[in-house]
Amino acid sequence: MIYWLTELRYDLGPDSFIAKLLNLFHYHTFRAGGACLTGFLLSLIFGGRVIRKLISLKVGQPIRSAEEVNKLFELHGKKAGTPTMGGVLIIGTFIVSVLLWCDWNNLPVWICLGTTLLLGALGFWDDYEKVARKNSKGIRARTKLAWQFVVAGVAATLFAYAMPNGALITTGRIIHTESSEEGSPQSTAETTTVQETRRPLSYRSLIIPSFKDPLIQDMGLFTIVLFSLIIVGASNAVNLTDGLDGLATGCTVSTGLTYAIFSYLASNVNFARFLLIPYFPDADELTIVAMALVGACFGFLWFNCMPARMFMGDTGSLAIGGCIATLAIGCKQEITLLLVGGVFVMEALSVILQVISFKSTGKRIFRMSPIHHHFELGGWKESQVVVRFWMLSLIFAMIGLATLKIR
Amino acid sequence: MIYWLTELRYDLGPDSFIAKLLNLFHYHTFRAGGACLTGFLLSLIFGGRVIRKLISLKVGQPIRSAEEVNKLFELHGKKAGTPTMGGVLIIGTFIVSVLLWCDWNNLPVWICLGTTLLLGALGFWDDYEKVARKNSKGIRARTKLAWQFVVAGVAATLFAYAMPNGALITTGRIIHTESSEEGSPQSTAETTTVQETRRPLSYRSLIIPSFKDPLIQDMGLFTIVLFSLIIVGASNAVNLTDGLDGLATGCTVSTGLTYAIFSYLASNVNFARFLLIPYFPDADELTIVAMALVGACFGFLWFNCMPARMFMGDTGSLAIGGCIATLAIGCKQEITLLLVGGVFVMEALSVILQVISFKSTGKRIFRMSPIHHHFELGGWKESQVVVRFWMLSLIFAMIGLATLKIR
Repeated sequence: MIYWLTELRYDLGPDSFIAKLLNLFHYHTFRAGGACLTGFLLSLIFGGRVIRKLISLKVGQPIRSAEEVNKLFELHGKKAGTPTMGGVLIIGTFIVSVLLWCDWNNLPVWICLGTTLLLGALGFWDDYEKVARKNSKGIRARTKLAWQFVVAGVAATLFAYAMPNGALITTGRIIHTESSEEGSPQSTAETTTVQETRRPLSYRSLIIPSFKDPLIQDMGLFTIVLFSLIIVGASNAVNLTDGLDGLATGCTVSTGLTYAIFSYLASNVNFARFLLIPYFPDADELTIVAMALVGACFGFLWFNCMPARMFMGDTGSLAIGGCIATLAIGCKQEITLLLVGGVFVMEALSVILQVISFKSTGKRIFRMSPIHHHFELGGWKESQVVVRFWMLSLIFAMIGLATLKIR
Repeated sequence: MIYWLTELRYDLGPDSFIAKLLNLFHYHTFRAGGACLTGFLLSLIFGGRVIRKLISLKVGQPIRSAEEVNKLFELHGKKAGTPTMGGVLIIGTFIVSVLLWCDWNNLPVWICLGTTLLLGALGFWDDYEKVARKNSKGIRARTKLAWQFVVAGVAATLFAYAMPNGALITTGRIIHTESSEEGSPQSTAETTTVQETRRPLSYRSLIIPSFKDPLIQDMGLFTIVLFSLIIVGASNAVNLTDGLDGLATGCTVSTGLTYAIFSYLASNVNFARFLLIPYFPDADELTIVAMALVGACFGFLWFNCMPARMFMGDTGSLAIGGCIATLAIGCKQEITLLLVGGVFVMEALSVILQVISFKSTGKRIFRMSPIHHHFELGGWKESQVVVRFWMLSLIFAMIGLATLKIR
């Protein structure tokens, strides 16, 4: 919205102070900072009110009625009164700051926003079933998956077929370099001539980190399948991770920051050429979206850190997962999500492996899944599990960023 | 040390695989990653042993004997058995990974290493007095300050008078730009001619963020006073911050990362020119030193996060403070330390203000200083104070980095 205002600067003189100020708002790095700050401050300001409202509506954390939960109940019993559905705060502040700071004339922003909102609505419905109707299982798994795949499918199709092509820019061949000292030793002049080649690239290509060329040039309809699986998978993985105070929120901050960097680099022609990564100029606004998510989650963490004063619930976790996945797809780094979101992947895998092992051999691999409960039952304090998983998440993010240089 | 090995590559053929591998070790970004990983893994591997050793030596946390500590004792009483002096682990892994990955032929590395080690030794002496001699006040404040100023004075003098000049590079005037399409639409050629000016700059100049030119070109002997105050101040500020599980360690990670970025940018001619910051090519090895500190502290945090299994003690905090300050001075960003190390500054200021207020008016501003105890006594749980201060520290780091763009 603020981006529109910057158009006014052409009506003012180029030397006008207001025109210069508006010019600042034109830079997407500046707007990314603004979006992060807005998300953070809005979360801080409205956090207390949301907690009071949720408590007054009696939106407390329901207790799972499984047998093995007894042990956890001893550890977490006191949490029964903490309000859930705090995700409404994250989604609300996120959407406000995206709408405020983004260029509205950018398709990936709308794909990301739509996915977040629709998956958040699904999470809200699920939370509502659990809390208000005291149905501890929430809505049926089949209904949930169907909704997720419909939303993800639409987002995937838009990415695959409605987005303009990007490009792979190969580093320029240096034709000519020359340097000369002119009189004083303090000034030197240098002349460089560089040639570069751009090859068009669509979202339907398959790019694997550390390979210069796409593995598959055009995956066709399979792109939709792949992108949908990534979106649905990420959404459910964040949902599974959200089991300890601040765990999913903190991991979202590090993942979001990483994708802010990825999308900044992917939309900057100089960095894309230097790093040999796909160049997608439209991904520039995703930097702002990612920073809005980081800010909103960072503010939420203030209330969500141990001992949590509210939980995000499915409302938050399903929405965040979808948001992260569309960010990753939008800057053509969907494969690195497996690495950058390593903690989420680990949590999801632990559940899958546990179920497979229990169904096939009757034995459990972990004391309890998702894996954070495994460590908790192994004697780590909740705060230790959370901080150590945050550390892991940061390490995964750094390894993910390091893939940029390994080519 | 590994850097030496890379010299061997000239004896091998340019196409030899080993020469190519050694070439990788020549890049300081690669060595920075290696240093971080080494520090982290060494801390993880030796952490458990250090804890057992310290416990067997009965190096427990002594309890302050002041009156007002009664309240804190209720909160922290259970900590009495946790071993302190864990700083030996940080200093040890830090030094090993610096020696392993840095170019030994670089003065700032040795200044930073010397300061860290000597201030660590002072902290060790202090801890030893407190723990082994059951003298809860440690060594005399006057002795401590004298040692700190001697170490800091030497480091400051070396920076002011033994370091080669850097430069301020003003953005090149673009003399000539031309672009032409050659046949296929996928390849374009571009020709740019740029002129740049370098003005020499010493460590004795005073650079204020967001000003292009130095405020003072040569501060002369006052440089030594300023740098010494920064080193002693930072050392004591980290010491005051180290009062809650993981607090100082986590804030060190964010501060260290920021200075890794600063020194990388200050030693890269392209970034220094683009950002209009002082160019000090010798600061490149400080990126590796900073990442070694980040790795060592990150590994230590594994054991130091709440509930802590060991504390760093004065051994760790005095050393870390000195290390951070010399890193900041080395990349000519000593003034931004006030911002980037905002949490440390806040903690130190809270003590100073409390003392001034109590001595002059008899009233206390804070429930208790340093300020983290103020919030704790105000009802925040220890883990909430720690996580929220970490968040603050990250925000300060980001604001510090943002000053790079505001010029």
